[in-house]
Amino acid sequence: SVNPDLASERQTASFCVEKLTALLDGGAEQTRIRRAVVEAIQSDPVFSRENQYFQTQNERYEAAVRKAVHLQKKMHEMGWTENGPEYKYIYRALAGDVAFLLHRVFMRSISVLGSDKQIAKWIPLATQLQLIGSYAQTELGHGTYLQGLETTAVFDIATQEFILNTPKISAMKWWPGDMGRSATHTVVFAQLYIHGKCYGIHPFIVQIRSLQDHSLCPGITAGDIGPKMSFEAIDNGYLMLKNVRVPRENMLSKFCEVRPDGTYVRQGSQKINYFTMTSVRISLISDEVLTPLMKACTIAIRYSVVRRQSKLKPGEQEAKILDYQTQQEKLLPQLAAAYAFHFINDYLQELFDRGYREIQRKNFDMLPELHALSSGFKAVITHHCTAAVEICLRACGGHGYSLLSGLPSLYTKILASCIYEGENTILLLQTARFLIKCFMAASAGQPVPPSVTYLAAVKPGKCPAKNKSDFLSPDIYTEAYQHVAVRLISSTAAKLQDLIQSGAKKYNAWNQCTVQLVQAAKAHCHYITVKNFAETVEKLETKAGIQRIMKHLCDLFALHGIFSNTGAFLHDGYISAAQMDMVTASYLDLLAVIRKDAVPLVDAFDFTDKSLNSALGSYDGQVYQRLYEWAQKSPTNKMSPAYERYLKPLLHNTLSKL
Amino acid sequence: SVNPDLASERQTASFCVEKLTALLDGGAEQTRIRRAVVEAIQSDPVFSRENQYFQTQNERYEAAVRKAVHLQKKMHEMGWTENGPEYKYIYRALAGDVAFLLHRVFMRSISVLGSDKQIAKWIPLATQLQLIGSYAQTELGHGTYLQGLETTAVFDIATQEFILNTPKISAMKWWPGDMGRSATHTVVFAQLYIHGKCYGIHPFIVQIRSLQDHSLCPGITAGDIGPKMSFEAIDNGYLMLKNVRVPRENMLSKFCEVRPDGTYVRQGSQKINYFTMTSVRISLISDEVLTPLMKACTIAIRYSVVRRQSKLKPGEQEAKILDYQTQQEKLLPQLAAAYAFHFINDYLQELFDRGYREIQRKNFDMLPELHALSSGFKAVITHHCTAAVEICLRACGGHGYSLLSGLPSLYTKILASCIYEGENTILLLQTARFLIKCFMAASAGQPVPPSVTYLAAVKPGKCPAKNKSDFLSPDIYTEAYQHVAVRLISSTAAKLQDLIQSGAKKYNAWNQCTVQLVQAAKAHCHYITVKNFAETVEKLETKAGIQRIMKHLCDLFALHGIFSNTGAFLHDGYISAAQMDMVTASYLDLLAVIRKDAVPLVDAFDFTDKSLNSALGSYDGQVYQRLYEWAQKSPTNKMSPAYERYLKPLLHNTLSKL
Repeated sequence: SVNPDLASERQTASFCVEKLTALLDGGAEQTRIRRAVVEAIQSDPVFSRENQYFQTQNERYEAAVRKAVHLQKKMHEMGWTENGPEYKYIYRALAGDVAFLLHRVFMRSISVLGSDKQIAKWIPLATQLQLIGSYAQTELGHGTYLQGLETTAVFDIATQEFILNTPKISAMKWWPGDMGRSATHTVVFAQLYIHGKCYGIHPFIVQIRSLQDHSLCPGITAGDIGPKMSFEAIDNGYLMLKNVRVPRENMLSKFCEVRPDGTYVRQGSQKINYFTMTSVRISLISDEVLTPLMKACTIAIRYSVVRRQSKLKPGEQEAKILDYQTQQEKLLPQLAAAYAFHFINDYLQELFDRGYREIQRKNFDMLPELHALSSGFKAVITHHCTAAVEICLRACGGHGYSLLSGLPSLYTKILASCIYEGENTILLLQTARFLIKCFMAASAGQPVPPSVTYLAAVKPGKCPAKNKSDFLSPDIYTEAYQHVAVRLISSTAAKLQDLIQSGAKKYNAWNQCTVQLVQAAKAHCHYITVKNFAETVEKLETKAGIQRIMKHLCDLFALHGIFSNTGAFLHDGYISAAQMDMVTASYLDLLAVIRKDAVPLVDAFDFTDKSLNSALGSYDGQVYQRLYEWAQKSPTNKMSPAYERYLKPLLHNTLSKL
Repeated sequence: SVNPDLASERQTASFCVEKLTALLDGGAEQTRIRRAVVEAIQSDPVFSRENQYFQTQNERYEAAVRKAVHLQKKMHEMGWTENGPEYKYIYRALAGDVAFLLHRVFMRSISVLGSDKQIAKWIPLATQLQLIGSYAQTELGHGTYLQGLETTAVFDIATQEFILNTPKISAMKWWPGDMGRSATHTVVFAQLYIHGKCYGIHPFIVQIRSLQDHSLCPGITAGDIGPKMSFEAIDNGYLMLKNVRVPRENMLSKFCEVRPDGTYVRQGSQKINYFTMTSVRISLISDEVLTPLMKACTIAIRYSVVRRQSKLKPGEQEAKILDYQTQQEKLLPQLAAAYAFHFINDYLQELFDRGYREIQRKNFDMLPELHALSSGFKAVITHHCTAAVEICLRACGGHGYSLLSGLPSLYTKILASCIYEGENTILLLQTARFLIKCFMAASAGQPVPPSVTYLAAVKPGKCPAKNKSDFLSPDIYTEAYQHVAVRLISSTAAKLQDLIQSGAKKYNAWNQCTVQLVQAAKAHCHYITVKNFAETVEKLETKAGIQRIMKHLCDLFALHGIFSNTGAFLHDGYISAAQMDMVTASYLDLLAVIRKDAVPLVDAFDFTDKSLNSALGSYDGQVYQRLYEWAQKSPTNKMSPAYERYLKPLLHNTLSKL
């Protein structure tokens, strides 16, 4: 039975939830396929996540390996293939709780960087899990700065082998997933040396464990790097190499080859590599960032309508906590952000697909824009969504702090997205570099990529809004965001030039501007997100109430951004103090409007109870019952040896004294 | 041997580190005592925390009980007493990783709420750990709103007993520490009923486990609530009561008593209870909030001078990451905040001590101010420090994400401080209520408590700063903070009155202002913090460079607050756009200044390696070596059954194919 406090929220939905779900999925047919995958995975007990909050790292690892092996069978059974429409839903349905994700990266790197012969040799074995691969790039001493990697691969003409070494402790490979305990092979990135000359970083296939008994190969030291904030299921590993020899054929050689005589040959364009990073950054947004935020919103909002605490109106029943303005102000902007970023993800995907088509035609013109946008958005979305999940967690008070709420695990995992695949600050600075370059070009009347043409058309002036309802006009707020982005980019460009003109070295001037450059890059991404949300709403069908509620969310997202960052808009008087008060009023009004549809808006994300794995977020809202029943299963509810060892001797004689 | 990159940072300290340590401790004698306690605790292997990142919740619990029992012996051995000068350092030296903390609350509640007879009966047993107590207040359904607690205690005249029940699932006690597995007794808070009339919440001593064999007593259902985001060592528990009878003497009766005939007698003032909450909120700041932040700063800053990544200047060695402006901008404001909050904590302690003296003289005048300040500062400090620890964690990139960095555990634990002992939003609204009341009183010319007299003297006008160095004047920035606090409090008071005058019910008007009320309360606390920091610096001795560096930190704290919240200062033009650019310039300049002393400033916190328990933060800065050696000890570096079960069958026949 559904908690009546939750049921009542669903009765008054202003729109058709099923239609919104289909919109989010990209069509009703996609919804159908997704649900079929979710059903097949979640009804299979091997894939159960029910015990995960109770398990040790070792137990999580073992379960993840079991799942990965079982998944192969399952895919075969279900007729799912890597190119089928179901594929993208499988990982999401597993909530990432499965081994051999780096094995996929191992395969992709061979496919992308390997010769046809290498692909023919390794990919069939890898596909069948007849070997398990990893991807050994990051070292103890180097992550961001790839040129600084210290592992070496020296070509030995005599034996036609490469000799690999991690010459210092800081050169030790550190973090590769699947490497700590599972992998038999890995792709090692190392500085290539031929005749004493360094040719930079290249990839080499290296066997690290015996296929016979899984023992470490000669010259290999490897193991697990131990506990992390999350990713308990993954055996992130370390790897040291001491004079490990691999045949010449093991250097991945689609783009570069070492001939038997030691001649180094570069062939084809390496720009595609660049494109791979872009692709990874965009592809992680959906499963690793948006899905967790949507889950967190679902959990926190459902909980906030069944939790009643204190009296809003004297003499009445205690109020649902979502009826408090402060609770709305915590949660509803996060809900709006989930939608905003869902739509910007569509935009990025579309841009990426277009870029990919161009690249296949050998046209690399879109690459700089694509790189800048994927970097900036990876950073902005991961940062924003991580903060949002934390807000959801805190908004559930003590119960949110229990692992059984599901929220701590969502948080500790999403946090990593701010660090991996490019640390966020570094990425934002790359976006900023692109923006400054485009701004200079635009100022000089040169053409610039589509997403930054606005930099060429800088309009001074003031926000024309006259009353609070004017701030519900997308033109009004989109222009305000654009104005701020232009102002921050242009003023930072000016500061940079001033510093250089007054004699600072370029690198010093850049460093002294980086705090502001980061702000400028964020403002650019924020502007594009708002603009894209508004344009998306414009194009929605007007039936079923979808457009109306999406318009409200778009307004909320935009006004929350202004409300939380008033200084940027007030700075040059583009928005006046009186107008800012209108923004605040409009923003607070919107909270009460969206609050009415809050539960239908999270229902539309269409998570099953098993997907959420949360005592607070279940569809029926039976929070307290679920917390109690689940807690009883915790291994901490068995007798502890602490009683016999430490407590009994103390307590045993008390009886006579009471 | 100390990493030379770290050693060089210490050679150029602009001040005497040992003097600063003494200042933080409150004198060199305190430093001596603290170090002696730390040494005694950390040299005792029973108290070791080295394995904690590898342990399960069950192992952590057992270790915590062992430590708690051993601590009794240790205190006796060392001659430490509960009233001695060493006492306050013991818990800090244990990093809270010890059982029976709620047992202390059990004892304190008996001491404060119990009659002399009750104290005489229970305290000696509890002191000797001959029974283990807990404190059962929070229920599944109620935390914040104590009046809503649903547990009942019905007086039965016939048997002279109270009959206790948790009549619904939401009435189940939930969260009490030490109750899940250890406690034999607990103080239960329940609605008292006599002859069918409810007298509100009262405390009752209830035995829950047998002293003979630790089995649950009749009518008791109790256990552990399972895994949480942190506090693995603590057995937070649940408790259901079904017709549990306790004698009339078990109601704690210093202030209220039920006579044998069922007459309810209230005696003495309960205001002291109110004072207890205040005391807890202030006392948690130091150990639970400031110490973790100081540890996080130490770890992140030491790491940031031994981590080199990428080249700042082309052709040179890779740069220490602390030389990047963006890294300084992440970490140094957190360091400044640690000092700012250390000094505001001194201020609150002093205020509290004064309040306590007054109360002992039956003068309760200071209570409202003390309550408002302790609530607001608890919220502001816990919120700020939690965010700061997260920034430190992220600033260490991938290595920060390893549990071995120590940072994830600091974060997941400090986060709870935003929720316990009063949820932060609720607390800020209590502060806001006080501020609005005082503002109205001040406007009407009535006297107000000392910390809010500034509300009476509202000066219009503009910030007089003319260049960026003017913003290094404490008068300039303190007045700016004051101005913002007054503006936010007065404008919210005006909105509240407008709403009421236009017909809104009071409770509705209040709810519609809560987002802004929270902002106002924060602004007030921020202002007091800045003012107190500036005044503290003013009073410091000018020798040994201490005052100079503290002045820089004070400036940084103040300017960072303006820089991060520009809108509040720009809104009514108190600070102009041109002045805000000066703030930014001054702020960024300061980062480079403080960066030079960053390591000495964290060295002054004087944590030992064992205190930090971090691979990144050790005094010698041998980060990579430590990560590697420590990771090898992880239980994930044992052979997993996953190989035999799942991998061997797949891999075994591959050999022939390669």
